[in-house]
Amino acid sequence: MSKYFHEQLGSLVTAIGSSYQQQSHVIPLDAAALPSRNTIIEVIQLLRELLFPGYFGKQNLTTATLDYHIGDLLIQVHDKLLEQIIFVLKYQAANEKSADVAVEKTSEEIIYAFLSKLPELQRMLATDVQAAFEGDPSAQDTNEIIFCFPGIFTVTIYRLAHELYKLSVPLIPRIMTEYAHNETGIDIHPGATIGSYFFIDHGTGVVIGETTVIGNHVKIYQGVTLGALSTRGGQALRGSKRHPTLEDEVTVYSGASILGGETVIGKGVVIGSNAFITTSVPDGTKVSVKNPELVFKGHSPREFKQEFHADWMI
Amino acid sequence: MSKYFHEQLGSLVTAIGSSYQQQSHVIPLDAAALPSRNTIIEVIQLLRELLFPGYFGKQNLTTATLDYHIGDLLIQVHDKLLEQIIFVLKYQAANEKSADVAVEKTSEEIIYAFLSKLPELQRMLATDVQAAFEGDPSAQDTNEIIFCFPGIFTVTIYRLAHELYKLSVPLIPRIMTEYAHNETGIDIHPGATIGSYFFIDHGTGVVIGETTVIGNHVKIYQGVTLGALSTRGGQALRGSKRHPTLEDEVTVYSGASILGGETVIGKGVVIGSNAFITTSVPDGTKVSVKNPELVFKGHSPREFKQEFHADWMI
Amino acid sequence: MSKYFHEQLGSLVTAIGSSYQQQSHVIPLDAAALPSRNTIIEVIQLLRELLFPGYFGKQNLTTATLDYHIGDLLIQVHDKLLEQIIFVLKYQAANEKSADVAVEKTSEEIIYAFLSKLPELQRMLATDVQAAFEGDPSAQDTNEIIFCFPGIFTVTIYRLAHELYKLSVPLIPRIMTEYAHNETGIDIHPGATIGSYFFIDHGTGVVIGETTVIGNHVKIYQGVTLGALSTRGGQALRGSKRHPTLEDEVTVYSGASILGGETVIGKGVVIGSNAFITTSVPDGTKVSVKNPELVFKGHSPREFKQEFHADWMI
Repeated sequence: MSKYFHEQLGSLVTAIGSSYQQQSHVIPLDAAALPSRNTIIEVIQLLRELLFPGYFGKQNLTTATLDYHIGDLLIQVHDKLLEQIIFVLKYQAANEKSADVAVEKTSEEIIYAFLSKLPELQRMLATDVQAAFEGDPSAQDTNEIIFCFPGIFTVTIYRLAHELYKLSVPLIPRIMTEYAHNETGIDIHPGATIGSYFFIDHGTGVVIGETTVIGNHVKIYQGVTLGALSTRGGQALRGSKRHPTLEDEVTVYSGASILGGETVIGKGVVIGSNAFITTSVPDGTKVSVKNPELVFKGHSPREFKQEFHADWMI
Repeated sequence: MSKYFHEQLGSLVTAIGSSYQQQSHVIPLDAAALPSRNTIIEVIQLLRELLFPGYFGKQNLTTATLDYHIGDLLIQVHDKLLEQIIFVLKYQAANEKSADVAVEKTSEEIIYAFLSKLPELQRMLATDVQAAFEGDPSAQDTNEIIFCFPGIFTVTIYRLAHELYKLSVPLIPRIMTEYAHNETGIDIHPGATIGSYFFIDHGTGVVIGETTVIGNHVKIYQGVTLGALSTRGGQALRGSKRHPTLEDEVTVYSGASILGGETVIGKGVVIGSNAFITTSVPDGTKVSVKNPELVFKGHSPREFKQEFHADWMI
Repeated sequence: MSKYFHEQLGSLVTAIGSSYQQQSHVIPLDAAALPSRNTIIEVIQLLRELLFPGYFGKQNLTTATLDYHIGDLLIQVHDKLLEQIIFVLKYQAANEKSADVAVEKTSEEIIYAFLSKLPELQRMLATDVQAAFEGDPSAQDTNEIIFCFPGIFTVTIYRLAHELYKLSVPLIPRIMTEYAHNETGIDIHPGATIGSYFFIDHGTGVVIGETTVIGNHVKIYQGVTLGALSTRGGQALRGSKRHPTLEDEVTVYSGASILGGETVIGKGVVIGSNAFITTSVPDGTKVSVKNPELVFKGHSPREFKQEFHADWMI
């Protein structure tokens, strides 16, 4: 450290400390510990090992040694996640000025309820892998999908986070899905409800809002928004149904937006690329977009001007 | 190493070395050291700890121990960032064949000017957190926003990088914002000017160009481009105002593009989803898009055809 | 571990183990080892050091020591990648019930063929860097492009993966490009064919499908899809030409979609923002979009209503 910086250090420390005091509504001094994002990411990695054994972490699993492997992973997940749940519940209790005597016991119950769901989640995720394989001709096999498809990565983390969300764990579910959002560009709120055989192809730019409800066998492409019509109400809207419902076997092509809590997309509907939908669509409909007219310079348009064919667009 | 590969290694080394010589315009042999992206990311993490104490890094901060914690972080940031700034200034001097005798002293002055801005940046970021909380009904509290919202992550890094950009530090500011771009899909050039209470919701696909100017209380959604009308001029356009100006209290919904250096979006304007704007819009206007006509197959359109209501679209 | 959890652990292990048995079509028990994504990412980092010496990894390279540095990196890449190729070829042989006696020898041949391509790849990447510098006025110099532009990062990994794809290596090429997709939001299938001087600006949301063919001097912006018209055929479509061809000197602005295996975009064509193209476009054409009509509230439209000028839109 230079002499110059050494002289200035004291006044920099004072200035920053004083700034903390002024921002005390967002800076938690003398407060209970907050959770650790890094530990939560470790827990996600352990859970992916549990859900997709042989793909991540330990290799060459055999039937003979499997129980020890599962037991070891479960103990690690239990210990790390329990600590984080205790942190957030104590922090919540402190903020609400309520007693936190039962936090340890409640946290134990939550984590047991969560871990008990893993076999069911594994069955759900196997349907998601199957849907990806059947829907995407670029997939060579299911290994490729599990190893590196961003849709499966994000849906795995969403399904885990959604269980914690249903168990009323604060903060941790959103940290989990925002980690997936960072990794893949697919933003699924942990509050959304999503059925089996769900496939997101490519996925970058997808947004699925908190109160979205999605049935089984639904397929969604990159850039699709399942969003709110307006959030100008701000915090007053919290808890209301603001996002759409997609029934079974709906397909939504790239760049489409479906908005509003009362919007219901019926069974088997296909929504074409770039459609902007704010009202309900009945079962079995195919919705195409008359895309904006193109203007051609340098050649007579009739040589190549593209006709509108609803079938092309979806 | 197999015998086969051992025999080939020599000729592979020669071929690659000879390729380096041919690409010498992009390969810095016998040159001054370049900065380290990994060290710059470490510096970003330390700065986030300084700006949001208790959230990242050390937990359980108390008023009593705070000064030591701040001092320790400041020293680490100083030492690591100083080294990187010296690297880029020496590299720049070597490229421009100018003397680099003053580089150490200049670097010290830059880093002190930068660190002195941290309290002000912290105040700005507290306004950004507040704007996110007020604008997003899915946010449970401000902790959630600080911990995991991609908008705050990116704007934090942008605000830090912008200070270094204003201090004429080469290369490092762009490495910082492109790191954020990687993490969140939000691409803010460090040269952009952005006021307080700035909120980017969801954010994937947002692009904010170098000469963009944004006022206070502005809100932007995923997929918004604040861009140039054309970059066919290439390097000849460097330094010119190519990107738009957004005045105070502007809202831009998802997928909209606002292009051009002379385009000014007036105070309080609301730009609807998917709008494509290339001219100025006066104060207080609401701009909606008549989205492309939809074609329905399988049902009579009048059963459910969506009417255009400008209010819906924004 | 609490007494409570200790009692439940056994039944949790049994439930998860039994779930594995049920999902045996996706869970590889008693199977050959799968590749390691982490090792493949290490290989990518070593290859980037080889292709861009001085930027990543070791600094201060001199002509005198260069051969040792190249040799050391080549040996590391060879050993790590060889191991992974052997894994995937053995796994493939096991799945296809074919003999795997020649796997080691085949793998050695593949890796030598791959490493021999590095000088050529380096020449190609130098053209990509040059194209980015010439096309982007925000780039201060080529260092900035190599250090932190997401387009170059992704195209580097794509070009490496494409060589392995051409050598019929399963799984690893897609793991490589999906890693880049995670980092940058740019999704290039390793099967795509891409010429020299290729530049992707900003890049988030770009999708380039498996059978896309791209000529030289092509430039693409964020949110562009080069995709299939429909994937409803699922796995039956595997291997068919489903994605478009872009000839030399084509530019595609942000948000445009070009779809279909028979769609050919001719030499020098410019496709404007948000265009939706499903048929071929002849050489030299400029295609603009009449963007959706805007509706203005709060001011008389004629004060500021935007006219359509095809020149603006591209």
